Amino acid sequence: MKIAFIGLGNMGSGIARNLAKAGHQLTVYNRTRSRAEELRSSGATVADTPEQSVKDAEIVITMLADDRAVENIVLWKGGVIEALPEGAVHISMSTISVALSKRLESAHKQFKQHYVSAPVFGRPDAAAAAKLFVVAAAPADLIHRCQPIFEAIGQKTFIAGTDPAIANTVKLCGNFMITAVIESLAESFALVRKSGMDPNQFLDIMTSSLFSAPIYKTYGTMIAQEKYKNAGFKLPLGLKDNRLVLAAAQDAAVPMPMASLIGDHFLAAIAQGMSEWDWSAVAAITFRNAGLDEAGS
Amino acid sequence: MKIAFIGLGNMGSGIARNLAKAGHQLTVYNRTRSRAEELRSSGATVADTPEQSVKDAEIVITMLADDRAVENIVLWKGGVIEALPEGAVHISMSTISVALSKRLESAHKQFKQHYVSAPVFGRPDAAAAAKLFVVAAAPADLIHRCQPIFEAIGQKTFIAGTDPAIANTVKLCGNFMITAVIESLAESFALVRKSGMDPNQFLDIMTSSLFSAPIYKTYGTMIAQEKYKNAGFKLPLGLKDNRLVLAAAQDAAVPMPMASLIGDHFLAAIAQGMSEWDWSAVAAITFRNAGLDEAGS
Amino acid sequence: MKIAFIGLGNMGSGIARNLAKAGHQLTVYNRTRSRAEELRSSGATVADTPEQSVKDAEIVITMLADDRAVENIVLWKGGVIEALPEGAVHISMSTISVALSKRLESAHKQFKQHYVSAPVFGRPDAAAAAKLFVVAAAPADLIHRCQPIFEAIGQKTFIAGTDPAIANTVKLCGNFMITAVIESLAESFALVRKSGMDPNQFLDIMTSSLFSAPIYKTYGTMIAQEKYKNAGFKLPLGLKDNRLVLAAAQDAAVPMPMASLIGDHFLAAIAQGMSEWDWSAVAAITFRNAGLDEAGS
Amino acid sequence: MKIAFIGLGNMGSGIARNLAKAGHQLTVYNRTRSRAEELRSSGATVADTPEQSVKDAEIVITMLADDRAVENIVLWKGGVIEALPEGAVHISMSTISVALSKRLESAHKQFKQHYVSAPVFGRPDAAAAAKLFVVAAAPADLIHRCQPIFEAIGQKTFIAGTDPAIANTVKLCGNFMITAVIESLAESFALVRKSGMDPNQFLDIMTSSLFSAPIYKTYGTMIAQEKYKNAGFKLPLGLKDNRLVLAAAQDAAVPMPMASLIGDHFLAAIAQGMSEWDWSAVAAITFRNAGLDEAGS
Repeated sequence: MKIAFIGLGNMGSGIARNLAKAGHQLTVYNRTRSRAEELRSSGATVADTPEQSVKDAEIVITMLADDRAVENIVLWKGGVIEALPEGAVHISMSTISVALSKRLESAHKQFKQHYVSAPVFGRPDAAAAAKLFVVAAAPADLIHRCQPIFEAIGQKTFIAGTDPAIANTVKLCGNFMITAVIESLAESFALVRKSGMDPNQFLDIMTSSLFSAPIYKTYGTMIAQEKYKNAGFKLPLGLKDNRLVLAAAQDAAVPMPMASLIGDHFLAAIAQGMSEWDWSAVAAITFRNAGLDEAGS
Repeated sequence: MKIAFIGLGNMGSGIARNLAKAGHQLTVYNRTRSRAEELRSSGATVADTPEQSVKDAEIVITMLADDRAVENIVLWKGGVIEALPEGAVHISMSTISVALSKRLESAHKQFKQHYVSAPVFGRPDAAAAAKLFVVAAAPADLIHRCQPIFEAIGQKTFIAGTDPAIANTVKLCGNFMITAVIESLAESFALVRKSGMDPNQFLDIMTSSLFSAPIYKTYGTMIAQEKYKNAGFKLPLGLKDNRLVLAAAQDAAVPMPMASLIGDHFLAAIAQGMSEWDWSAVAAITFRNAGLDEAGS
Repeated sequence: MKIAFIGLGNMGSGIARNLAKAGHQLTVYNRTRSRAEELRSSGATVADTPEQSVKDAEIVITMLADDRAVENIVLWKGGVIEALPEGAVHISMSTISVALSKRLESAHKQFKQHYVSAPVFGRPDAAAAAKLFVVAAAPADLIHRCQPIFEAIGQKTFIAGTDPAIANTVKLCGNFMITAVIESLAESFALVRKSGMDPNQFLDIMTSSLFSAPIYKTYGTMIAQEKYKNAGFKLPLGLKDNRLVLAAAQDAAVPMPMASLIGDHFLAAIAQGMSEWDWSAVAAITFRNAGLDEAGS
Repeated sequence: MKIAFIGLGNMGSGIARNLAKAGHQLTVYNRTRSRAEELRSSGATVADTPEQSVKDAEIVITMLADDRAVENIVLWKGGVIEALPEGAVHISMSTISVALSKRLESAHKQFKQHYVSAPVFGRPDAAAAAKLFVVAAAPADLIHRCQPIFEAIGQKTFIAGTDPAIANTVKLCGNFMITAVIESLAESFALVRKSGMDPNQFLDIMTSSLFSAPIYKTYGTMIAQEKYKNAGFKLPLGLKDNRLVLAAAQDAAVPMPMASLIGDHFLAAIAQGMSEWDWSAVAAITFRNAGLDEAGS
């Protein structure tokens, strides 16, 4: 298929490469052009502007930093939405707000285009290895049309429903559940550390028994060893997603006190200078509150 | 080995049966005698009092409801600690406080007996199937002596350290982490439900991707279906364990705000009449706060 | 002075009347025109549009529901900001976000107009009685120019600084502190009620000793008697202000866990159908969580 | 009246002196004898043991550090309860648990003695100046009998009910409400400080308008100036009272999430070495979480 791909950050580059590898005809755009040029070796064409990238596209995929970036590139007067051909499909893969997902759906409808929400779970290494989990939502025929794309980039695709925005809700809840894992590990580690036990040993017991999901191992190891500097996903992005889930919760009138608590820890982490660290560094706030100093991440 | 087993509730009966099955010579005691009599068919002798049960024992195992029960039976003047032979070992398997574990260790030392802390993870069905996870802590030679017992009742034994009380800390942290899973599911379910999605479908996505640990499936299913009445572990016991982890945290000067938040939900659940329900019913508080009525558990 | 007054809700009408009474020449605008017509008897002229109201004004005062209303009326293309004469002053009295206050300041500067932020404390009866507390921020000469207005509507004016937005921060923190009073009363009342004591009696002890500020009496009485239906300030407005203080806190990287907690109670109150009640009804969430039913407010 | 007074700390000495000044015949006991000797100049007799102090007493007043101290001195075998004459009254003035208050009531009944619960509000300077607020609970005739004592030490006496334990509930709720004031000030100060405003100025606005109760001024000034070292009431005592209100709340099945949140801040303060500071130093946790360093209290 003729695919325009906009946004080549840590996640986007890996995804775009896998699409090229699967034989799709790719035109790519990235604000920092050098990252787009790197895709030439995979056979991609590089566009000068987002609008140019989509002008013959059957599909445009966006993988952008936040709501504002999507609004500026897609919804702006003269933007992607005006350049994209009728009948084409916009697949939004980045983690955006439920509210923006709804606006995109109705905007594309006005322009006789289609909109599929398909956020993904996985860190950059999973994106590179085509091991993402894709959570897609759209009417069945559209999903069907996009299936080859999902298969090229992920290990599994889940259909969340026919209403695109629900995929965003699922993604945001999933990210919230990860932060709950991080915070529960942080509080437990603080207690076992102050009780004289190595948190790595505690983690080993937990992951070998009840908490066998890899996510406990991945984040638990980073937190037990206080290695936050190699940021797969930066802390301010964690705060951003926390605010998005709380915004969705507010619109739906759902109190999420655990999400609120974690959000305050993210804010504390930013206030204390951890903006360049991995989002798992939010655990350091719990450690500091317990009077534990970092080992030196 | 000659084993005295005290406390034959949902967990204790299964464990005792597996010990009998493994060829150990069992003397059992339970406050409600009928539950002890049921063990005769497995070859156990029934004692009239706790003290009588231990008088020739090499090992005494306690699996009792709470700290008070252990204190009353073991530490009371004229109790088990006075009747147990010198050199014998007390294995405490129930979830008790870190503080009581420390007191037991020093009390047994005075009486020239040994103390092993070995709380277990698993619900009654796991106890019956000898699939428990045992978290043991004591000096190595003692652990070695108890190994055949652990092997007869569990699928895996973890050594938490040489200081018995650390096993209790680990157990309490593990239970806390389960409650964090429950609360994170509850908040997510509330949001997806009010966003128009079946929580079972959401759960299926989560457990098929990032949250593959069985615990998410087990509790997630109960909560998504609001089936709390078949209580494997009653809600007030959940509150009790929450208070024990917070007590340990207080003694160690460790703030655990997520544990505090969950504790307040347990209290609300009890205030609203859920004392006979499974502890996963704490999720109902989150649902009610979101204006969602139960389906009728 | 020639004053345009936009927004004649519960608060605005009282304020406008007091300005008329003080001899100022008033032109008023309100979306629901009937409320504007009521001001004719006080000598005010009624404008058909916001823009018309300001065309000869020396001062325009806005007292509008929320950020969106201010944006739509003032900042919109063709709006008040284009119609207001050079050199005139915009006094924003409603509770708006810190961020909008900053945008207003710079927008008015572009149009060679002045901006004074002057939110007020007090409920509608205080507005009617000219007993408001005004918190104003702007350069000293501007404050000086507005002083006769503040004196006509309030019992006391506080100068928060020269940067207008700081007045909004102060106002939002003040409202947050009121909600902290409400929540602390609610939790205390829940405990004394379940301990067998009349909360009115408890309140009487508290307000006659340490907590003598009228705010404890005002809100305490409403909560102790569960009389929430006579809404001086509706619950969704309380949620709005809570979100505004949390937004300011996020921009400043300040965790405010107590504000977060209270925000979740506001959401629960809305989820449970209390949107028409006074914001003090947030206490009912605490009561319900404690298993206490309302008396029937 | 012949009064035995046990416990001459910061609060007790002031109270005892005022009783002597009012003409009562005092016998005093304190663990650290030197503080008792200081009372001789006020005409008090010094006892060698608590039991000796009460042997001819009509009234015994205890003002002790915590539950354990009261249990050890009053309820112990051979303790005050056995030495106190029949018909005498025990007035417990220190802040103890609701549960202990109930035990004391029934224990004294067994010994044909009377029990009045009469905790007080006020810091040491108020105790010295006979300006305490007394919250008393007991049957009316007993209250009547103790009235001269209350008048000698306080500015006002409140009768909370006929059941003594309710006075303890009231006292604990009052102290909780003070901590809510402290935390609400701390969060507000953090925001205004990071927004560029002097917290003293903010405090001045608040205490001159809605929050006129002296408690806002007293604690607000300490917190705005970060002067915590002159401890009128030490931080661990604040934690103790927080745990007592949460224990009462647990027994009554009342969730108090704000009290839980504050309790976690107290724990953090202790973990971070503030045990010798005034309990208002709990505000420093909020400041640190916001990335604000202390000025150097």
